[in-house]
Amino acid sequence: MSNLKSIADLQDALCLALENKNFPSEPKNLYEPISYILSLGGKRLRPVMVLMVADMYGCDITQVMPQAIGVEYFHNFTLLHDDIMDDAPLRRGMTTVHEKWNANVGILSGDALFVKAYQSLVKTDTIHLPDLIDLFNQTALEVCEGQQYDMDFETQDLVSMDAYLRMIKYKTAVLLACSLKMGAIVSRASIEDQNHLYDFGIHTGIAFQLMDDLLDVYGNQKDFGKQIAGDILCNKKTCLYIRAYEVADASQRKVLDHYFAHQDFDPEEKIAEVKKVYELLNVKAYCLQSMEEHYKLAMSHMAQISIPQDRKSTMTEFVDMLMVRIQ
Amino acid sequence: MSNLKSIADLQDALCLALENKNFPSEPKNLYEPISYILSLGGKRLRPVMVLMVADMYGCDITQVMPQAIGVEYFHNFTLLHDDIMDDAPLRRGMTTVHEKWNANVGILSGDALFVKAYQSLVKTDTIHLPDLIDLFNQTALEVCEGQQYDMDFETQDLVSMDAYLRMIKYKTAVLLACSLKMGAIVSRASIEDQNHLYDFGIHTGIAFQLMDDLLDVYGNQKDFGKQIAGDILCNKKTCLYIRAYEVADASQRKVLDHYFAHQDFDPEEKIAEVKKVYELLNVKAYCLQSMEEHYKLAMSHMAQISIPQDRKSTMTEFVDMLMVRIQ
Repeated sequence: MSNLKSIADLQDALCLALENKNFPSEPKNLYEPISYILSLGGKRLRPVMVLMVADMYGCDITQVMPQAIGVEYFHNFTLLHDDIMDDAPLRRGMTTVHEKWNANVGILSGDALFVKAYQSLVKTDTIHLPDLIDLFNQTALEVCEGQQYDMDFETQDLVSMDAYLRMIKYKTAVLLACSLKMGAIVSRASIEDQNHLYDFGIHTGIAFQLMDDLLDVYGNQKDFGKQIAGDILCNKKTCLYIRAYEVADASQRKVLDHYFAHQDFDPEEKIAEVKKVYELLNVKAYCLQSMEEHYKLAMSHMAQISIPQDRKSTMTEFVDMLMVRIQ
Repeated sequence: MSNLKSIADLQDALCLALENKNFPSEPKNLYEPISYILSLGGKRLRPVMVLMVADMYGCDITQVMPQAIGVEYFHNFTLLHDDIMDDAPLRRGMTTVHEKWNANVGILSGDALFVKAYQSLVKTDTIHLPDLIDLFNQTALEVCEGQQYDMDFETQDLVSMDAYLRMIKYKTAVLLACSLKMGAIVSRASIEDQNHLYDFGIHTGIAFQLMDDLLDVYGNQKDFGKQIAGDILCNKKTCLYIRAYEVADASQRKVLDHYFAHQDFDPEEKIAEVKKVYELLNVKAYCLQSMEEHYKLAMSHMAQISIPQDRKSTMTEFVDMLMVRIQ
């Protein structure tokens, strides 16, 4: 079996394949926004994971390139529509499509990109088609459900930790899990391996999201690149907030209610007062532990995959590299 | 081979199958709008045509029911998003989803319904899957392109008749053609028959749209049910307008430009003045002739389908019934 490819090699192969995709020149207002959002870059986490799984199994990565590209198209379709729904002005530091063009262009070019995802996804042996398409349909529907739960949370006073974990599982983790399983399907991995890779993706995805929540408040702004405590400032219900609210006494809930009721506080005061409650209730340690549990669950699924340990190293190193930011 | 089913039988079977579909109860804001728009009814033209083709070939209609439902889901997905883009307050006399809920709900429940369309569509023998999905993807992309061209026309001074015919082909006719061809694929019709049915759908769809354009101005309001000359009042570029603008002299163009520049005219005056130009330029006869040519082309494709003539009667009668309104 050939040597494992490096992460950099996989990323290069993916970027080259993405760059070689050309969209029709007409209608301009349908396809230019698609080329634009795809050109904004990003980590390409999901498609690289598709390739990485194929490489783990010694399958030629060109065999799974259409599925890798399909997943990246789908992810960017969700960004186009989510940015409209969240009224986000910026995406990766650049103007969002609905701001640069308008909301209608964002809706329709998103729809077209969704179709392009399906078109790419089905470029495979007919034998894989039913499994791939069922998995992808189920995932796409769950991603919609996750986004809906996330929007519902904005107007809900009380969100349980279970409901929160379901939301991040659907909104974030299932697409990672789907990417890994698609790589496994095309590589003709056993059903058991496919399912372990899927569960590895679920728990990795949840761990990543919990990490993001933690980094927002406890991360190093220089490393992280985002505004510190942006989630607190915009009243976002993260795992920290939800845990705090769950265990808070009446007076602590009052503080949280007060500061999460609107946005016109002095930012430094708001962050300091909310963090004070977080610290009293020890929510950082709770969320860190939850994150680590999901990370360990992910690794236990990886351990059960029936290929030699040394073929798992790129994947585990990749995940470790992404997780290291939490320390 | 069994006797042909009546249109009423096919419609009943379809409605029953649609009614038996239940969506999850949660998240409510994702699935309630889907049930709502599907409950608004409509002619169910496209799914009935899927069933009708299967029946033509003596194939059990339950075999193509998932594709019929998939096409109806897709059509309703496009309505959800188009109504947002067109800022339409009403759909089939009822409040549109983005008005009843909000635009975000319309976007996201549309996306979910699009996935449900794919989920239904792929319920078939694996052998049909590649053909069905390629056809559906191509069609979905063309429908997006058609909608984009239609929106582009709003801000374009000059729209050629060729560009208009391409727009209505993509926005309307391809989904009818796709419906017919999907029925033919699952019924194991020959490739030649599949393509004749597709072309029958294209020309029927174009003829229907030209008929709609004509009826808006020359229809009987009682029969037609819409406001007479609504297209003129909202400055819509129909085949009548486009033909008129193409053959108008400078002074006639000035009249059209004047009345199509904005909407704050006395409605009766505006309609009368625009119709006067239409009559001078004989655009009604031109569009009627174009419609009839597409109808004849459709029928010539139907004539070439290699099944006994008497098995085509329900389809040709159905189309005739829908076309009769033009007289």
